[in-house]
Amino acid sequence: MALRIDFNSDLGESFSVYEYGEGEEIMQYISSANVACGWHGGDALVMRKTVRLAKQRGVAVGAHPGYPDLLGFGRRVIPLTYEEVRDYCAYQIGALWAFCKAEKVPLQHVKLHGAFYNAMVKDPQNAKAAAEGMAEIDPNLIMLALPGSELDRAARAVGLRVAREAFADRAYNDDGTLVSRSLPGSVITDPEVAAQRFVDFCKGRVITITGKELRLEVDSICLHSDTRGASRHAKAIYERCRKEGIELVRMAELVK
Amino acid sequence: MALRIDFNSDLGESFSVYEYGEGEEIMQYISSANVACGWHGGDALVMRKTVRLAKQRGVAVGAHPGYPDLLGFGRRVIPLTYEEVRDYCAYQIGALWAFCKAEKVPLQHVKLHGAFYNAMVKDPQNAKAAAEGMAEIDPNLIMLALPGSELDRAARAVGLRVAREAFADRAYNDDGTLVSRSLPGSVITDPEVAAQRFVDFCKGRVITITGKELRLEVDSICLHSDTRGASRHAKAIYERCRKEGIELVRMAELVK
Amino acid sequence: MALRIDFNSDLGESFSVYEYGEGEEIMQYISSANVACGWHGGDALVMRKTVRLAKQRGVAVGAHPGYPDLLGFGRRVIPLTYEEVRDYCAYQIGALWAFCKAEKVPLQHVKLHGAFYNAMVKDPQNAKAAAEGMAEIDPNLIMLALPGSELDRAARAVGLRVAREAFADRAYNDDGTLVSRSLPGSVITDPEVAAQRFVDFCKGRVITITGKELRLEVDSICLHSDTRGASRHAKAIYERCRKEGIELVRMAELVK
Amino acid sequence: MALRIDFNSDLGESFSVYEYGEGEEIMQYISSANVACGWHGGDALVMRKTVRLAKQRGVAVGAHPGYPDLLGFGRRVIPLTYEEVRDYCAYQIGALWAFCKAEKVPLQHVKLHGAFYNAMVKDPQNAKAAAEGMAEIDPNLIMLALPGSELDRAARAVGLRVAREAFADRAYNDDGTLVSRSLPGSVITDPEVAAQRFVDFCKGRVITITGKELRLEVDSICLHSDTRGASRHAKAIYERCRKEGIELVRMAELVK
Repeated sequence: MALRIDFNSDLGESFSVYEYGEGEEIMQYISSANVACGWHGGDALVMRKTVRLAKQRGVAVGAHPGYPDLLGFGRRVIPLTYEEVRDYCAYQIGALWAFCKAEKVPLQHVKLHGAFYNAMVKDPQNAKAAAEGMAEIDPNLIMLALPGSELDRAARAVGLRVAREAFADRAYNDDGTLVSRSLPGSVITDPEVAAQRFVDFCKGRVITITGKELRLEVDSICLHSDTRGASRHAKAIYERCRKEGIELVRMAELVK
Repeated sequence: MALRIDFNSDLGESFSVYEYGEGEEIMQYISSANVACGWHGGDALVMRKTVRLAKQRGVAVGAHPGYPDLLGFGRRVIPLTYEEVRDYCAYQIGALWAFCKAEKVPLQHVKLHGAFYNAMVKDPQNAKAAAEGMAEIDPNLIMLALPGSELDRAARAVGLRVAREAFADRAYNDDGTLVSRSLPGSVITDPEVAAQRFVDFCKGRVITITGKELRLEVDSICLHSDTRGASRHAKAIYERCRKEGIELVRMAELVK
Repeated sequence: MALRIDFNSDLGESFSVYEYGEGEEIMQYISSANVACGWHGGDALVMRKTVRLAKQRGVAVGAHPGYPDLLGFGRRVIPLTYEEVRDYCAYQIGALWAFCKAEKVPLQHVKLHGAFYNAMVKDPQNAKAAAEGMAEIDPNLIMLALPGSELDRAARAVGLRVAREAFADRAYNDDGTLVSRSLPGSVITDPEVAAQRFVDFCKGRVITITGKELRLEVDSICLHSDTRGASRHAKAIYERCRKEGIELVRMAELVK
Repeated sequence: MALRIDFNSDLGESFSVYEYGEGEEIMQYISSANVACGWHGGDALVMRKTVRLAKQRGVAVGAHPGYPDLLGFGRRVIPLTYEEVRDYCAYQIGALWAFCKAEKVPLQHVKLHGAFYNAMVKDPQNAKAAAEGMAEIDPNLIMLALPGSELDRAARAVGLRVAREAFADRAYNDDGTLVSRSLPGSVITDPEVAAQRFVDFCKGRVITITGKELRLEVDSICLHSDTRGASRHAKAIYERCRKEGIELVRMAELVK
């Protein structure tokens, strides 16, 4: 059983006057924050505020680049060329880097957002573009990726470290992919179930939607900040980890 | 007479399918390029391409942050708070920094764009915000500023180096300010006049719109890339400098 | 005492995944809705939904055009030319008109949003541009305007009907202008005070921030939907009107 | 042989300071203009200007709605829901309608732009959404559609008139679809070839890329305004039509 694991969440997705997600509360419980970069959500002021809050809480900061689609919150796949993927990633990582630099916080990792993340699971060319866009900025950045995905492979191929990711609030298919959000039962709504699932991941396994046990080695576990009651889920996970003796540590301490 | 001076221009302002300005040609003649960062013009692909071209030509790269107003090309003053100015600058500088990092080119300087630049001439609070947003990212960056402006003062106050700027294609009032673009004669249209003006600046002077001679010490001279015939102006300046023995050098070699 | 008055509110300012304001609840109490048109807030889906809801509730629909500044929620004055004001208004009114047409609801009025509204109080040229942009689309539209403002004058000058507006949740200066939001006491936070103020307006008066009674003839009274507790304010006003025998009617029945 | 046919082009795609396409010159030769609505290109001022110019030239006006993707110029397919397609269409049609109303020009038709147009060829659900979004605004509008496409069917199904469209500057496959732009020979570059193709369409036929003759009944023939030399193509077509006795008439005179 992994007694040390990273707990990550997507935060800083508010924009202008619009508040979104329970990021501020969740920041108390996690070890790594994926901070939106202004394309699918977030803006310059929100980015600064989120980086500051992460610093205060001792939470590590990562960039969370998304599609240029605020209207669709980055949840619609936009077919992009190699150059577009690479440069859209670079732009957003650079923008967040500025706030990390200003607040004297290291930029630890990159996690692609929403449909951008999903598009990289099976697309080797664009996965390579994202990895390249990131590696040429800083080869020490860690890529958060679904284990076994093309993104996982592409990041390792360019020499980046990868933190293998699991999702505490999502149901799994027998083949290790996530159950589509459009299907019933795809999103975990009970905090205790999410907490149990978190502990299971630490034990290297997950119970799939059909009840099978699946082996799964992961370094970082994600909880979305924008599902109803997300902060209660985060708290339940945090407390369960204390009880089980699981230490929550930033992914940089795990992937070497 | 200054035998070494920096020649700068605002480039990379194309966006999407839209081409704008004669940047590519002008890149042959200048020593420093101010590269748009995607808010008033430019986009991630254009930024990459412009930084690459600058590198090939041996031209130093600076960030050219503007107002969040693509529709108005950053030419309309938007009243901003201290935090907004600071964070809008940081975001854009960071975004360009990413492409400099990727292309292994140092980020030399920052020049605010259009109405954003003008707004800092007389506004000490926002000038301070821009300088701070820049200095906390990298205190070695150089600020391009109108000599004697609030931006000039604010940048020095936070410890930044300042390159004092003059404009080869604009008429001057007797008090050293630029003649408003809305007035006749405000924009220089004859390449030879622009070239003469450039040489005059090197000699520490400018002939104002009323015919007076004004003393003016500058480190860098700007030529806009989006006025009609801009590349011919740039060429005329370049050739005149060769004839006069004026060496065009990146501003980092001049301001220490 | 006016026994019939219009009660208006700015609604439909949610955008993408971002929910904003208590519009849905407030729709129960008002007689006219100012629907955001996608530039400062709102989007095509939100517009459709808001127009539908208004129709179900028997609430009259108006367009609520704002500055092209989603990032600033239309609260920052952007200096515009005559043509820009006119065409930005026309564009947004047309966009909302489409949803009215689709839902078989008449478009009753136009109310400018935020800083765009404020900019027209003292600017006769731009007030004329807004009135013209509206009148050339449909001369039967009603303009909501601060009584005595340049917008009030400009709209009448081009032959538009004007509904004179007061604000139930804002403090007034002795000269009839609104107390700046930056000053203490500028926003009314007690539902009963807002309700009393509403009744006062019906009686043609308002008690200013210094305690003076000011005479003020108005046709429509606004309550913002995005202040904390806005729906409770709306309900208090609605109930107070029933008690006082004040009938809430769409402005089209009042201004002829 | 059709002695009367409509000649259409996509115009008004400039944005902000960015000029795009040879629309102004082409306006002299065509009978119907598809005017961009600000989402993939165009803006409020450009829309006004383009509608005015069309009016002066006696050219009929149509709306040209695109994806919300200025950065990609509407050329990237964004997967949309039924409601999104319907409401994105309605919004943009309404916006253009405003300028038609202001300039006292009827809105004749709708043509979807770029990837939005292509997405409707084989997607019956979204084709229905686009047709519905248009019909509920005005059932007298004409839909421009590829003959036999799902859009063609969907528009007729909701009772709209359809103008069947062909492309003078694109090569055809044997099955009547367009040769992909990524293949050599897909775009016609010789004005005389485009003119011959135009005449062929009038005769109800097209020679495919393999040299076969294909029968094709069309009402309107498109020439893109943003290919190099587009205005020369337009002129060649115009002159050839005069010589052949083909009358160019707005599509509203042809589809009843």
